Amino acid sequence: MNEKVWEELLVQNDSKIVFLIMDGLGGLPLPGGDKTELETARTPNLDQYASEGICGLLDPIHPGFTPGSGPAHLGLFGYDPVENNIGRGVLSALGIDFELTSRDVAARLNFCTIDEQGRVVDRRAGRISTEVNRKLVEKIRANLKMPAGVELFLETVSEHRAVLVLRGDGLGGNINDTDPQKTGVLPLDPVGEDEASQKTAEYVKEFLRQVKEILKDDHPANFVLARGFAKYVPFPTMEERYGLRSIAIAQYPMYRGLARLVGMTVPPVPETFDDMWEQLKENYDQYDFFFIHFKKTDSYGEDGNFEAKVKMIETVDAWSARLRELNPDVLVVTGDHSTPAVLKSHSWHPVPALLWSKYCRPDGVTRFGESECIKGYLGRMPMKNIILVAMANALRFNKFGA
Amino acid sequence: MNEKVWEELLVQNDSKIVFLIMDGLGGLPLPGGDKTELETARTPNLDQYASEGICGLLDPIHPGFTPGSGPAHLGLFGYDPVENNIGRGVLSALGIDFELTSRDVAARLNFCTIDEQGRVVDRRAGRISTEVNRKLVEKIRANLKMPAGVELFLETVSEHRAVLVLRGDGLGGNINDTDPQKTGVLPLDPVGEDEASQKTAEYVKEFLRQVKEILKDDHPANFVLARGFAKYVPFPTMEERYGLRSIAIAQYPMYRGLARLVGMTVPPVPETFDDMWEQLKENYDQYDFFFIHFKKTDSYGEDGNFEAKVKMIETVDAWSARLRELNPDVLVVTGDHSTPAVLKSHSWHPVPALLWSKYCRPDGVTRFGESECIKGYLGRMPMKNIILVAMANALRFNKFGA
Repeated sequence: MNEKVWEELLVQNDSKIVFLIMDGLGGLPLPGGDKTELETARTPNLDQYASEGICGLLDPIHPGFTPGSGPAHLGLFGYDPVENNIGRGVLSALGIDFELTSRDVAARLNFCTIDEQGRVVDRRAGRISTEVNRKLVEKIRANLKMPAGVELFLETVSEHRAVLVLRGDGLGGNINDTDPQKTGVLPLDPVGEDEASQKTAEYVKEFLRQVKEILKDDHPANFVLARGFAKYVPFPTMEERYGLRSIAIAQYPMYRGLARLVGMTVPPVPETFDDMWEQLKENYDQYDFFFIHFKKTDSYGEDGNFEAKVKMIETVDAWSARLRELNPDVLVVTGDHSTPAVLKSHSWHPVPALLWSKYCRPDGVTRFGESECIKGYLGRMPMKNIILVAMANALRFNKFGA
Repeated sequence: MNEKVWEELLVQNDSKIVFLIMDGLGGLPLPGGDKTELETARTPNLDQYASEGICGLLDPIHPGFTPGSGPAHLGLFGYDPVENNIGRGVLSALGIDFELTSRDVAARLNFCTIDEQGRVVDRRAGRISTEVNRKLVEKIRANLKMPAGVELFLETVSEHRAVLVLRGDGLGGNINDTDPQKTGVLPLDPVGEDEASQKTAEYVKEFLRQVKEILKDDHPANFVLARGFAKYVPFPTMEERYGLRSIAIAQYPMYRGLARLVGMTVPPVPETFDDMWEQLKENYDQYDFFFIHFKKTDSYGEDGNFEAKVKMIETVDAWSARLRELNPDVLVVTGDHSTPAVLKSHSWHPVPALLWSKYCRPDGVTRFGESECIKGYLGRMPMKNIILVAMANALRFNKFGA
């Protein structure tokens, strides 16, 4: 469904739509078991929402495909995740909560080791510590002199990883990686594919020339390699696309960045789950759409810690009970993708989802879990549809055609 | 999902994917009954795979559409069956296990009867026997003298049907049928739509001129009509598309030909089901993907023989138990389409499917049959998706986006 179809169907009203997202929610049973993390968790509150609402399974990208966090969240927000792939440099900047502007080109940087002939000896500079990284970034910032017409930002990520952002008018991101992907050879020169990118590549070249000089005595981290250049092109905002004034209540930088990418307001980092609740309550009147993001379900899945993921789901279950106080018009509870503890990674399995509103047909599902969700009214559908169904339940669409 | 999206996500590993295909598997109950052929059959082994795996229903083309064997198998192999329609001439050549090359144009031929003025009197030459067909083909081969620059192959199919293949450089298949589709009129002259096809049409004309002379005393089969000219354009192979070294274990020519069309290795015809097993075992180490095709479920469906189709399913069920010895990473059991005995033909009904791997969520389906499959995790999906889900379960895709 294309936004051109629905833009003239949009209705403005006072309804409130809450998306409660547990990152990596979907799971698998432990070997020999028959219950996923969600099915193992005691979730009386979510089960009650499921009983009153409708359930289903969402495919973030397409059956069989495992999404990264970027595409998965675009799906949740209703943006086609394949058509709107986000460049890696931009994702890295979002991942450290860097506020990109439409004049920015971003890239990932790795500190690396080069020999006296300039050949790459170690593409990760022996995985230097984050602390060393910070010091090197400080040193570069202190000594770098970029020409007029461009601002340059350099930010530590972790270990050998950093982010480079160039800000200026008429910059372009169609630039090759300078990382040669192997050792024993020279880094590649950055070359732009079009005029804007050529101009940008010249700035990158100048930056690299100076960095080589600045770091010449900092072996093993005596140079940098750049990858994933991408121009930041902000998406149509949630408000432009759906008429929804949207706010993100999220603790982790990547998800705050992804929310910013679609134009959500992103208030200061809430330290605790209680802070998240307070932030939701404080902002409840000023917004229509609330993206509430809990990260740890995914982290424990990635760790292979089935039990901790179960406990985290139970924590969110308890948290979710409070939402009744606010009486939203539509509540969606789901994940952005599956992260089964047994796989210790994101996976292709469809994600359990529940949608709760006044207008749900009873579907007999009384337990929020993967195998019950198969039987629900939402069916199995692309993730990008869920926001449209939520808006329908908020009576935010006129009928199509007469 | 476009292959451009996944080509950079492909992972090479040692996993084995087995597709066990019962042709025309899907069915309908007999009048007054409530169980399809598959639901009537005793299938303890398939039921066990279903219990451990996930089930669903596959649409070969699109809900409501009945596929031929060509499109249905393209769907199984993950090639869009509508975008990749195979020309009829090519399908006919595949159907007799003729090994086409990319220099070939193929067409269907019918022996026909013409009168002294050359007008078509019988478009099928009174349905001559296959034996007579073979003798006429021999006679034409013995007397035909084609010009340099083209090789011509003429092969008996059955009764009045034969296949014509022209092989040479720069040939084209955009040529009209010479069959006028009615009697009392002259056959049409072959005309090419473009330069390559015009050149080819001239060869066809010369062939027809000589055939008329050679068969002039062979009433009722004293001429031929050509239909469905098509240039053979081999598809990207399974190995190119998925990185899967693939082999077909199939007894019937059409399916062997379709496997060859997507670049599978096709070893000699296995005479018995035991031979099929031996062929699978012998080749197990050298390949990643195994297409195992059982034909008779479809043949009995076409005959309207419900009981024989049930028995054939039970035979395949027993055969399938042996696959445990090989311990494949992923097993898919399904059909290419439905062939309900009550319809005596292919049908539009979605096809029951099961997928078995280590990474299946329990879906509560313990019986492999159409009405149980509705309740499974695979849901109802286009047939062309199943190979992608199988590859995901074989851990052959990296995640999409970061």
